[in-house]
Amino acid sequence: MAEIAILGHGVVGSGVVEVLRTHEESIARRAKEPIHVKHILDLREFPGLPYAGIFTKDFEKILCDPAVSIVVEVMGGLDPAFPYVKACLENGKSVVTSNKELVAAKGAGLLALAQKNNLNFLFEASVGGGIPIIRPISQCLAANEVTEIAGILNGTTNFILTKMIREHMAFADALALAQQLGYAERDPSADIEGADACRKICILASLAFGAHVYPEEVYAEGITKITLEDVAYADAWGGVIKLIGGVRALGNGKIHIQVRPMFIRRDSQLANVDDVFNGILVRGDATGDVVFYGKGAGKLPTASAVVADVIDCVKHMKARKYLYWEDAKPGYVEAYDRAPAEFFARVQGQGSSDEAFSTAEKAFGSIKRVIRRGEAAGEAGFTAQGLTEREFAQKAARLEEMGVRVLGHILIADY
Amino acid sequence: MAEIAILGHGVVGSGVVEVLRTHEESIARRAKEPIHVKHILDLREFPGLPYAGIFTKDFEKILCDPAVSIVVEVMGGLDPAFPYVKACLENGKSVVTSNKELVAAKGAGLLALAQKNNLNFLFEASVGGGIPIIRPISQCLAANEVTEIAGILNGTTNFILTKMIREHMAFADALALAQQLGYAERDPSADIEGADACRKICILASLAFGAHVYPEEVYAEGITKITLEDVAYADAWGGVIKLIGGVRALGNGKIHIQVRPMFIRRDSQLANVDDVFNGILVRGDATGDVVFYGKGAGKLPTASAVVADVIDCVKHMKARKYLYWEDAKPGYVEAYDRAPAEFFARVQGQGSSDEAFSTAEKAFGSIKRVIRRGEAAGEAGFTAQGLTEREFAQKAARLEEMGVRVLGHILIADY
Repeated sequence: MAEIAILGHGVVGSGVVEVLRTHEESIARRAKEPIHVKHILDLREFPGLPYAGIFTKDFEKILCDPAVSIVVEVMGGLDPAFPYVKACLENGKSVVTSNKELVAAKGAGLLALAQKNNLNFLFEASVGGGIPIIRPISQCLAANEVTEIAGILNGTTNFILTKMIREHMAFADALALAQQLGYAERDPSADIEGADACRKICILASLAFGAHVYPEEVYAEGITKITLEDVAYADAWGGVIKLIGGVRALGNGKIHIQVRPMFIRRDSQLANVDDVFNGILVRGDATGDVVFYGKGAGKLPTASAVVADVIDCVKHMKARKYLYWEDAKPGYVEAYDRAPAEFFARVQGQGSSDEAFSTAEKAFGSIKRVIRRGEAAGEAGFTAQGLTEREFAQKAARLEEMGVRVLGHILIADY
Repeated sequence: MAEIAILGHGVVGSGVVEVLRTHEESIARRAKEPIHVKHILDLREFPGLPYAGIFTKDFEKILCDPAVSIVVEVMGGLDPAFPYVKACLENGKSVVTSNKELVAAKGAGLLALAQKNNLNFLFEASVGGGIPIIRPISQCLAANEVTEIAGILNGTTNFILTKMIREHMAFADALALAQQLGYAERDPSADIEGADACRKICILASLAFGAHVYPEEVYAEGITKITLEDVAYADAWGGVIKLIGGVRALGNGKIHIQVRPMFIRRDSQLANVDDVFNGILVRGDATGDVVFYGKGAGKLPTASAVVADVIDCVKHMKARKYLYWEDAKPGYVEAYDRAPAEFFARVQGQGSSDEAFSTAEKAFGSIKRVIRRGEAAGEAGFTAQGLTEREFAQKAARLEEMGVRVLGHILIADY
């Protein structure tokens, strides 16, 4: 029998207990031994639960229990999750976590510690909830060089964008609805400002390219500036707006990584990923594009990913799983504004829309017009190819000097 | 160093050598030791190849070489692939195969043999080419009961249907184009009659539900009867026609499994899987729907899946991977025509379309009309809910007696 402890009894933690209890028999068959929850750490009390007797407020009790071989960390945040996880790995206990903040901030160090002590540190649930993605990238694509990853990694923002696209709901209304439905927290900033998606693409980039990428190094823009006008222009252009976390190997040992809203063509496999769903595209030199799609969050999907890691841990108690990356060298992350790309821009002049567009042509050179239904007087939309973010900013400044304001610009994805 | 042998140097076999050579260093790092191809079995000669010296026509040479620990079978077919694979597993060699016919026909026996001899028998490449699907189902979804799997599993037929849907190409023309492009073989029957998709859904069903399903037990209908009229009706109904292999646990220990063209709603994640791509939806009680998408065939995608299995084999030389199913009890596969479903039907009367429809209402009871653009005189389309295939046939016979011919009927999917 494998004895485990769970740190945290919130949504995911209680889900882990539920999955372990409801699938007890099949899990024991798959793990080749029963899995027993010996302790649950939580500061709260849960007197009504059938397993109320195994709660503790004392982490030391778990750390010093030699029977516990695996600790599940589902508290979230860095403090005290980080010191607790570190202590577990220093004291001979493998760790399974769903904590993306922890993995994105401390992954390289914790993986090195796990390797040193011949333990497992697994985190399938940290990205994509119930979608298998960490394991497929690290194992199934082992015979394949990953060249690029792009994902819709945050369900809350995807829900909001879907409402804006399908029902022409304004951003603020869609956010309020997401909060009402429990998809967004009262303080939604980590979702709508892009920080959550940023942590996830950092984890995927670290895994796929072997060197740790810290969220602070990554340009992350959320969806707060996206308007219904942008959505209408995306539609006229032939696509939709999605918040994409993307990373690409540049071939010179560096990577290009960013999180931002992008125009996605309607026939892209990511265009149809709607509502709270996540979709992750992995481009490999041998496999081509492989896409993983499913519920990126939620109690049971996330809990089932955690439990799958626990089963894997139990089965490989003595054999470490291959899951490793190193700390990156300085300069590994290319400045986000240096890579040539295609952009959509929406501008506003004093005269007619035609005039605004022809002024934009003077400032930008060769551009392509996009006309939306219900275009306002003096408003114009266009796409411009082959310039970096920096060059775009320069040309936009020139355009402003010519009396046409740039209301917004959005990157155009090539997947 | 791990020494391997490859049986067959066709498209996949030569791709395996190519992937092993071009990714030599990263593969050695991931497998934790170099992988060396010692023999290749093929009756043909390849004098121009840099590795021409390792070819052999003698299987015994491979079987009796104690240095070879893993044999890759990429010959296809059952004879001699089956006796060769069996001999390998009887003689202490793990086997990796891409041969869906072999796994679908002989999987349970070969898995039992591998287990008995503490060897691995892996076949990630047998379904979905480069899409990771076998491993995610067996591992990542370990803490989850799979309730249903539905997939677009054959790239050739999906290419043909895409041409029919997007370019209104007739079936025969689309097939000819597929042959011209190398997507369909000169004898395309295994693809277009559904046998290939049938083998793949049998493998997925065996894996997900733990008991072997043989292709002979499964109702498989191809796409040869699909017309442009059907495609137009699907469009008017709000979707597309796809060839789907589907399996569902019935809750009474039996499964319902079939391969047939189906109407798929436009907002389904399977509706957008076009051209030669494959898409596989796995429905789990905890994860909800998870979809895997990518190139389902082709030299390098398939070869990279084979090599990923080889790497896994090398890493787990002494620890068997969990991959197992038993032989099924009689009656395990429910008769395909006994499950209630929704159908689309296209009928042809002597009078007007309205008359044909109202006759159909008399024969079928409550039905819903679907009107396509360019509907022929006397032609009518409708959907009928909550009847089994058998009941449909009875009502269709009644309708024919009333002077209205049933030109075709197509199942409507609920995913």
